[in-house]
Amino acid sequence: MAKPILLYTSLCLLLVLFNGCLATQTSRQQQRFNQCQMDRLDALEPNHRIEAEAGVIESWDPNDKQFQCVGVAVVRRTIEPNGLLLPQYASAPQLIYIERGYGIFGAVLPGCPNTYQESQQQQQQREGQQRDQHQKIRNFRQGDIIALPAGVAHWLYNDGDSEVVALSLLDTNNQANQLDENPRHFYLAGNPEDEFQLQGRSPRGQRRQQQQGQGRRERGHQQQQGQGNNLFSGFRTEDLADAFNVNENTIRNLQGFQEDRKNIVKVKGRLQVARPPRSREERERLERQEREQEREDEREQRESQSRRGGHGHDNGIEETLCTLRLRENIHDPSRADIDNPQAGRISTLNSHNLPVLRWLQLSAEFGRLQTDAIYVPHWNRNAHSVIYVVKGRAQVQVVDDFGQTVFHDELQQHQILTVPQNFAVVKRASSSEGFEWVAFKTNDNAQISPLAGQTSVLRAIPADVLANAFQLSREDVSELKSNLEQQEITMVKPSRSSSQRRTIALMKNLMVVQSLESEVMTLCPSDFYDSNSD
Amino acid sequence: MAKPILLYTSLCLLLVLFNGCLATQTSRQQQRFNQCQMDRLDALEPNHRIEAEAGVIESWDPNDKQFQCVGVAVVRRTIEPNGLLLPQYASAPQLIYIERGYGIFGAVLPGCPNTYQESQQQQQQREGQQRDQHQKIRNFRQGDIIALPAGVAHWLYNDGDSEVVALSLLDTNNQANQLDENPRHFYLAGNPEDEFQLQGRSPRGQRRQQQQGQGRRERGHQQQQGQGNNLFSGFRTEDLADAFNVNENTIRNLQGFQEDRKNIVKVKGRLQVARPPRSREERERLERQEREQEREDEREQRESQSRRGGHGHDNGIEETLCTLRLRENIHDPSRADIDNPQAGRISTLNSHNLPVLRWLQLSAEFGRLQTDAIYVPHWNRNAHSVIYVVKGRAQVQVVDDFGQTVFHDELQQHQILTVPQNFAVVKRASSSEGFEWVAFKTNDNAQISPLAGQTSVLRAIPADVLANAFQLSREDVSELKSNLEQQEITMVKPSRSSSQRRTIALMKNLMVVQSLESEVMTLCPSDFYDSNSD
Amino acid sequence: MAKPILLYTSLCLLLVLFNGCLATQTSRQQQRFNQCQMDRLDALEPNHRIEAEAGVIESWDPNDKQFQCVGVAVVRRTIEPNGLLLPQYASAPQLIYIERGYGIFGAVLPGCPNTYQESQQQQQQREGQQRDQHQKIRNFRQGDIIALPAGVAHWLYNDGDSEVVALSLLDTNNQANQLDENPRHFYLAGNPEDEFQLQGRSPRGQRRQQQQGQGRRERGHQQQQGQGNNLFSGFRTEDLADAFNVNENTIRNLQGFQEDRKNIVKVKGRLQVARPPRSREERERLERQEREQEREDEREQRESQSRRGGHGHDNGIEETLCTLRLRENIHDPSRADIDNPQAGRISTLNSHNLPVLRWLQLSAEFGRLQTDAIYVPHWNRNAHSVIYVVKGRAQVQVVDDFGQTVFHDELQQHQILTVPQNFAVVKRASSSEGFEWVAFKTNDNAQISPLAGQTSVLRAIPADVLANAFQLSREDVSELKSNLEQQEITMVKPSRSSSQRRTIALMKNLMVVQSLESEVMTLCPSDFYDSNSD
Repeated sequence: MAKPILLYTSLCLLLVLFNGCLATQTSRQQQRFNQCQMDRLDALEPNHRIEAEAGVIESWDPNDKQFQCVGVAVVRRTIEPNGLLLPQYASAPQLIYIERGYGIFGAVLPGCPNTYQESQQQQQQREGQQRDQHQKIRNFRQGDIIALPAGVAHWLYNDGDSEVVALSLLDTNNQANQLDENPRHFYLAGNPEDEFQLQGRSPRGQRRQQQQGQGRRERGHQQQQGQGNNLFSGFRTEDLADAFNVNENTIRNLQGFQEDRKNIVKVKGRLQVARPPRSREERERLERQEREQEREDEREQRESQSRRGGHGHDNGIEETLCTLRLRENIHDPSRADIDNPQAGRISTLNSHNLPVLRWLQLSAEFGRLQTDAIYVPHWNRNAHSVIYVVKGRAQVQVVDDFGQTVFHDELQQHQILTVPQNFAVVKRASSSEGFEWVAFKTNDNAQISPLAGQTSVLRAIPADVLANAFQLSREDVSELKSNLEQQEITMVKPSRSSSQRRTIALMKNLMVVQSLESEVMTLCPSDFYDSNSD
Repeated sequence: MAKPILLYTSLCLLLVLFNGCLATQTSRQQQRFNQCQMDRLDALEPNHRIEAEAGVIESWDPNDKQFQCVGVAVVRRTIEPNGLLLPQYASAPQLIYIERGYGIFGAVLPGCPNTYQESQQQQQQREGQQRDQHQKIRNFRQGDIIALPAGVAHWLYNDGDSEVVALSLLDTNNQANQLDENPRHFYLAGNPEDEFQLQGRSPRGQRRQQQQGQGRRERGHQQQQGQGNNLFSGFRTEDLADAFNVNENTIRNLQGFQEDRKNIVKVKGRLQVARPPRSREERERLERQEREQEREDEREQRESQSRRGGHGHDNGIEETLCTLRLRENIHDPSRADIDNPQAGRISTLNSHNLPVLRWLQLSAEFGRLQTDAIYVPHWNRNAHSVIYVVKGRAQVQVVDDFGQTVFHDELQQHQILTVPQNFAVVKRASSSEGFEWVAFKTNDNAQISPLAGQTSVLRAIPADVLANAFQLSREDVSELKSNLEQQEITMVKPSRSSSQRRTIALMKNLMVVQSLESEVMTLCPSDFYDSNSD
Repeated sequence: MAKPILLYTSLCLLLVLFNGCLATQTSRQQQRFNQCQMDRLDALEPNHRIEAEAGVIESWDPNDKQFQCVGVAVVRRTIEPNGLLLPQYASAPQLIYIERGYGIFGAVLPGCPNTYQESQQQQQQREGQQRDQHQKIRNFRQGDIIALPAGVAHWLYNDGDSEVVALSLLDTNNQANQLDENPRHFYLAGNPEDEFQLQGRSPRGQRRQQQQGQGRRERGHQQQQGQGNNLFSGFRTEDLADAFNVNENTIRNLQGFQEDRKNIVKVKGRLQVARPPRSREERERLERQEREQEREDEREQRESQSRRGGHGHDNGIEETLCTLRLRENIHDPSRADIDNPQAGRISTLNSHNLPVLRWLQLSAEFGRLQTDAIYVPHWNRNAHSVIYVVKGRAQVQVVDDFGQTVFHDELQQHQILTVPQNFAVVKRASSSEGFEWVAFKTNDNAQISPLAGQTSVLRAIPADVLANAFQLSREDVSELKSNLEQQEITMVKPSRSSSQRRTIALMKNLMVVQSLESEVMTLCPSDFYDSNSD
């Protein structure tokens, strides 16, 4: 392979070459050790868009360094009324957040029974027909989080009269994803486009050509197969016909060769599985009953397992998934963990209130900050946090282990910010409508450690440690700790304006100068303290 | 280090160089994110062979991209009658499938008692000698799967009169393997060859020389140490003599410097631990009793643990491994999960029927397809699948998330095909003797999601979703679902030939054309459906 | 970007370039598969040092290939009397070994109550002041292992009159660390230096300049922010003032802009949380009581959980961490697992005797070898081992899967040697004061498999397998096994000197030559054996 090159350059060149490549080798050897070594974070917006027949799909670049550090991928689907997101699954567990709208979804859990049937009413409409059995269909509505294990096929249908906006987070770094960290959707129907523009993957048409050029053994079949992109399209039509025992025309429809509706299609008429239209109130009442019933069933099952010897965990997902709830509403104010009319509201979804999350190793938080309120500086102890802005704007700062500001900017609606594990973050609502977000966390019981507020880490440290660590007077530490004690948990509304505090500070400054002058006084003058406290 | 090079080329070259290397850097940055990004799979055969005194070792290239995606390595050992695979362990958990023959094996579980002794009969043969205590010895026979945790030393002996063929799958990507993903065998005896030709590892002799050239501090010792390849050979003879309190000649035998029998050695006479030769029937009867007893013991132990507070899982492997069964037969037709005389048979081994697999996070499937029968298209929900062909041939197709056919070929005896998690696969027996395979799965309770057959994912989806997703008439969907309902589970024997179906299809085609002409009819004409169903 | 280069070299160069870079690409593709492919190990010493106001921090290079293979980082802090290691946390779980001295530490567990207060006596000293509430403070003393989950803030204070030496092992490869494998300390106070000189991270000052050059949006803020390195320093002063509701001067102290005391600071006077000075005996008696009480509490809690349905594991760390013990003494001879006056002593700390280790997936071993005693050759079945020499010296040999000696040298005080999983290792105390070490293991129940000693793997293998594997006579195997039986567990004191054994060996040699002459005799001569055994 080596061609003759001029002697007087060759040797030197090889040396340079050797050095050059060696240099990149050394630096790259560290790559997997540096994927979270980021000088700055950015507020990210989707950079890829698919226009489908009945909706739009927008995805964030999964190759962005921020997403690679936290190991997730995010896609947002807007489904028009009467639109159907085609059945599909992903190799990573996912959480779907319903930002807007309502509808129904079905998840196909292997090994679970097909016991659900269309309602009586629908049966009557088509009396004489065969009854259609299928797995359970669930409602979803604004504020729901839907939890889906890896490899579980599912579909979404918008049976409302406004858009459904659904944001999916795929935890590609999850142990349940045994493939590489590329997010992958496997479609069962239609002729969908790839929802992520993945690197190292040439556009589909181009790839087909290349393969034909390479003279692959199966080339003949491929040409015959046309241009489908779903799971069926890759199989030989006649083999599928044999496997399904139906004619090849039906199979060709499964393969979607003539399809051009892409990932989200328009349903002709109304989807017949949908329940008869009722009033919004009636609908919600029925749904609440249904959800309460599900929780009851789940609790009973867990208790009965626990009586049988506590094997709930050991026997694994396959035995319990059939009855486990897959969704829970995170907007509902009645289930907020923290609710402070002045400052805001936080609701958390974890494996305690949605047990399926134990298998997904994911949790979620929905938050609302009132205008000018602050979500106190804190770090995520055991998880990454992926923040998606639902409404409003906030000033956000993120600080790394180096004390570096890696993000300081206004975070706006529909932007995403990833906050890596242990990085400190503060948010302050900066728009008049406040700030609403949903945060996905890569741990089924994500914990935060607040720096300020009633649960501040500083309150848990003895005063004298703080005084020495921060070179503060015992008096200042007392004030700091008692201020924290009087604050709310995690969210605060600044009580005094900065300028007010500045005046007070000026006065205090004089006192500090005074106390510094006589260092003896700073050390142990109990009478000095007496004059200021209690 | 930089030598002077001609000025007029240097700058440009550096630029080119920079660009060139930078380009590879960028693409490589994505490497760990793309290791499962494969345009095609191949049926793989072993590419490395070791001829030992009493057998042959063949290994598959662990650096093949397919194996790197699924994170396993495979080696097949053929042990001649009276051959002994020398004691060894691996840093990865493994499953050993006994393709042919029978024999005995011992696994050394640290912390378990040495309570087993040679049989009375053998004792009498050498009366007056000290009784030899050791850990339990187990039988193995054709169709057994032996499960071995990481780092557990074991040996195999062929005490039959035909070859033993044993296929080992090492799960190098398993969490229990804390080393890198190279498969590693650590031999306790002999002078074995490396079973895998690992990249980045120079042949042994060469390495020795390099080290001597580098003037390592321990060079003196190395030269003294000769050429052993087992664990003992790397230690100083005199230190081992002190540690074992035996003379250096014995140690030199442990070190295997004079060995040339390689990994599988011929036993002189018969191995004295072997039970006295009996008739095949008697042997099998005794073995069945023994296995039944083991299952009983294991069950009792688990129940007693569960009574003591369900700590079975928490207290970990070290307390229970001494009594856990390490093998189970997967060929035995009586334990088949699915048995359909026309289509075939499937047996599954997972942590429910072999609890040690919970710690290994592995399971296995043995399958047999009758001629022309089809293992329906399906995906592995939560595991990779590594298929090894035991007998016969099959037409196999594998489809990726892009709808791409990544494999379409005939899979032949002794070939391996890796099917990554969530990729769809169909198999059709193409030889007159049918098709038999064993599939190793990287999850202790691997699940499949079938596309066809009685448990098809399509049956779990409401008819109207299918009709809209696939643009099929309600009638065609009804036929599809009712056909699936009448099928067997996962394996089907095509009932009508393709040509028969083609005729029917032609007739239907006409009907479809008809129905397309009047679109109103396709939408909701209940009377139209009436004429065709129920 | 490409400049014109001379035609006659360009093409060839590109070819060379292509080949060169391609070559590195291929080799690098294997990198993550080869990170434990090491031709040699080295005894490592710290290569980075920080001099702080009241102590010294020394760290080992985390980019050393050995540390990257085992996935840990190590730092040693020497804290002067009255020195305070500033509050901080790490993104990896860690074990802290107290090599010398005693003191107190506080760990801030999110969600646990602030119920501890200063002692009565201290209160009286400052009567009239507000009582200071904080989380529990624990004592530590020489030989303690402190276990800290990821992201848990903690501080250490030396309240003794001699240096405290504390060695921290961060398990960066642990699943609980979701960031990359760089060890990271997040400081809550002061102006600390980075404890590890991480590659790909430019020195702090330089980075600031670069960022300013890049014209980041937040540049303005950064300049305003000065030069702090702790978590607070990266936030805007006015935002913190609002979040904490204190004046900006206090905040500036939190931010540590004027700090120059670095990571370990001198406490003014004595830390007021410290208990009043007592006699050493009284102190130790009180502490023993306290520790016994903690164990009792923990046991009660576990039992009550087990009664409530065995959910101890499922409900996770967050519910139990508040009461879990975080430290245990490993020096205490009364809790040694093996204690042999001639040979030495081994104590093990795992999740059985310190349950918090279950969440950390770490364990530790403290060992002492008497002069010339041998820790028998063994391998770590399910963990890496990171050995730190506390006292004395030892001759150590490590052997890899290839039978290669990858380490053969004297290991000296304060050096670290990493022994990868499954590599075999032998240690022999070579100094007159013996050899003391602590070994950190990357599994909460690390197991060893000894090659020699009473629990040798060879004793668990039937004699005839050994005879055939090692080409030893049945007699030699009997001697070997009976010698092993009479040995101690894992540690032995050579009973006969090498020279003594050599004389015996010489005599035996003659016998072996004899026996080889008549091969019939070697095979089955029961009368021959009779003369030597029983």
